[in-house]
Amino acid sequence: MGIKVHGNPFSAATQRVLGTLAEKGLEYEFVIIDLGSGQQKTEAFLKLHPFGQVPVLEDGDLKLFESRAITQYLAHTYADKGTPLIIPHPKKMAIISVWSEVESLKFDPEASKLAYEFVIKPIIGLTTDESVVEQHEGKLAEVLDVYEARLAQSKYLGGDSFTLADLHHTPVINYLMGSKIKALFDARPHVSAWSADILARPAWQKVVALMKH
Amino acid sequence: MGIKVHGNPFSAATQRVLGTLAEKGLEYEFVIIDLGSGQQKTEAFLKLHPFGQVPVLEDGDLKLFESRAITQYLAHTYADKGTPLIIPHPKKMAIISVWSEVESLKFDPEASKLAYEFVIKPIIGLTTDESVVEQHEGKLAEVLDVYEARLAQSKYLGGDSFTLADLHHTPVINYLMGSKIKALFDARPHVSAWSADILARPAWQKVVALMKH
Repeated sequence: MGIKVHGNPFSAATQRVLGTLAEKGLEYEFVIIDLGSGQQKTEAFLKLHPFGQVPVLEDGDLKLFESRAITQYLAHTYADKGTPLIIPHPKKMAIISVWSEVESLKFDPEASKLAYEFVIKPIIGLTTDESVVEQHEGKLAEVLDVYEARLAQSKYLGGDSFTLADLHHTPVINYLMGSKIKALFDARPHVSAWSADILARPAWQKVVALMKH
Repeated sequence: MGIKVHGNPFSAATQRVLGTLAEKGLEYEFVIIDLGSGQQKTEAFLKLHPFGQVPVLEDGDLKLFESRAITQYLAHTYADKGTPLIIPHPKKMAIISVWSEVESLKFDPEASKLAYEFVIKPIIGLTTDESVVEQHEGKLAEVLDVYEARLAQSKYLGGDSFTLADLHHTPVINYLMGSKIKALFDARPHVSAWSADILARPAWQKVVALMKH
């Protein structure tokens, strides 16, 4: 009855959970869901996730979906293991929550669409749509301007230490680093240093290694 | 140095925070930001919220933005006051987080666009775009199908009691009840009972009263 993750090594949301497990040094069973054949929409899988998406986490009898709810659960429940990804202080935790919300509602909607255009579309044989790229590139640049100002004052988004607020960004930034969108990061020195820092973490490198098998 | 909210009584995100303060029975100063004249984009306001949006909460020297980060902060910090909007138990809290994420990432993107078409556009002199309505109405119906199944098993989304997972929905549902989208709620008995329940809460009625001044 240990921890079980149902997901796909190429899904950014799955990687968010795997990255958290690696930071925590937790053992888990990884059940690979074949997204290409639509396994996530089968009746059996919809019992685990009513929206038919990955990842799903099982921890004993607890079943959770939504990657950011899962990472919060892991960070709170296994607070004493591995990297402390939260800070047990209400005001400091509130700042981490602010920047976690910014990732989810400001950064990810733009960055994920760009990752889809540059990374996923070529894999599934579709062509990158430059008009979509242009639209989201401009909006992502505005978000990164706010990040540049924040990271000039604070080493990490949530405060002085690496927390969930940073970790949640890693999978999509990793994908964008292989595209021309990397230039948006390179042009902002604090954003550039921060993204290099979070991508170099040994726990993240373990997730990257899973993609190469 | 008490609690101060910078926001607008007609902003759903502001209402989410005001509803939480009302459930907690907390006193606060309400600083109204004139969204029509773009006060949220002024240099002075951008110091409080780098993305130039409402609401912002100040509690002593702490400054927070992003409505759902603010409600979490209030629920944790003032846990012993008013309605308990969270459950201090890791597995139960994780379920609340799952449905809070569903509100933010599945429900709100569809519901807010519909509220914009039916509620905001008529106020600012624009015409409702039926093609936009059709697109988001179908997606919202799919989300509400999942809610109907969930609420058949659990009185509230996060569990047996009213929590942030429910509260976060209230402002946008309140707006949609005055439109034809109400039919999507009426067609699902558990969703219909749940939405009537959360809209009838005395704390929410205090927020509604603020819109009438």
